Amino acid sequence: MRVLGIDPGNAVCGWGLIERAGALRFLAAGTIRPRAALRGPARLKEIHDGLLELIDRLRPEVVSLERSFAALNVQSAFKLGEARAMAMLAAAERELELFEYNPTDVKLTIAGFGRADKRQVKDMVRRTLGLAAGVALADDASDALAIALCHAFRARAPRPEPPRRARANSARAL
Amino acid sequence: MRVLGIDPGNAVCGWGLIERAGALRFLAAGTIRPRAALRGPARLKEIHDGLLELIDRLRPEVVSLERSFAALNVQSAFKLGEARAMAMLAAAERELELFEYNPTDVKLTIAGFGRADKRQVKDMVRRTLGLAAGVALADDASDALAIALCHAFRARAPRPEPPRRARANSARAL
Repeated sequence: MRVLGIDPGNAVCGWGLIERAGALRFLAAGTIRPRAALRGPARLKEIHDGLLELIDRLRPEVVSLERSFAALNVQSAFKLGEARAMAMLAAAERELELFEYNPTDVKLTIAGFGRADKRQVKDMVRRTLGLAAGVALADDASDALAIALCHAFRARAPRPEPPRRARANSARAL
Repeated sequence: MRVLGIDPGNAVCGWGLIERAGALRFLAAGTIRPRAALRGPARLKEIHDGLLELIDRLRPEVVSLERSFAALNVQSAFKLGEARAMAMLAAAERELELFEYNPTDVKLTIAGFGRADKRQVKDMVRRTLGLAAGVALADDASDALAIALCHAFRARAPRPEPPRRARANSARAL
């Protein structure tokens, strides 16, 4: 199963592709950054077109998307809703099933506790996927890989349950 | 100038098309209602596809969109942001210029005061466009026509200024 994780954002949209065929394998990750000079609609189009291009090139089977229930304020919720909508639409256009996980679930599943910080999540993403220290990983790409991993773990379990830290480590060696 | 007004919503997306060539003229209005049984991504796709179909069929030159700064809560802001994003994307995909107006501006421009209620706005939309009493107009379609009219009035004025009630009436007779 190829899972495309998406960490939606209006300024930076992170993405990460993993494969689970017994073992978990890192395939690719990166970010879509709409040009800063663009107005809102053109920015959204760059995110949308970028995601469609990724899907057509990388052929994921499912999309895993972060679903925030919190936002600093209503204005930031509007912006985040707009960016999330691009991922939802791209998945629907390519008839890919979409799964949504809230940030606490992602952290709990990856790092073993729901309040893990970005660095702890990144460390666990690297360890779980066996990424060499030399492989650069942008924060938003790391978050997207964590969202993809969250789906890979949850979909494997008969009932959604967070893996223990030990299990997250051993996944690499399956 | 053909203006497509859009009142975005996740359950009902209103639209209204007017033409300003000297006089203001009503061309068409309606609503897009995604099937209630659909999940979020598929609903957004129905709104997106519906808007693209409208644009291709009705050939507006500009899109006028309501921009809310208020929402009941963060969750409703996410939903509204998602629906708004479909209108923004459709405009960008068809290379149409997009103008945004907040609800108070729309009411002020159409009804002469920023706290006009839905019925007052609808009455003024009907009078301004000379709609016969027999022409049915859904609330969301009426709101979309008001948003289109707001742009028609604002774009005509050298500086944005709300027309007086008398001016809104006389527009029909120009």
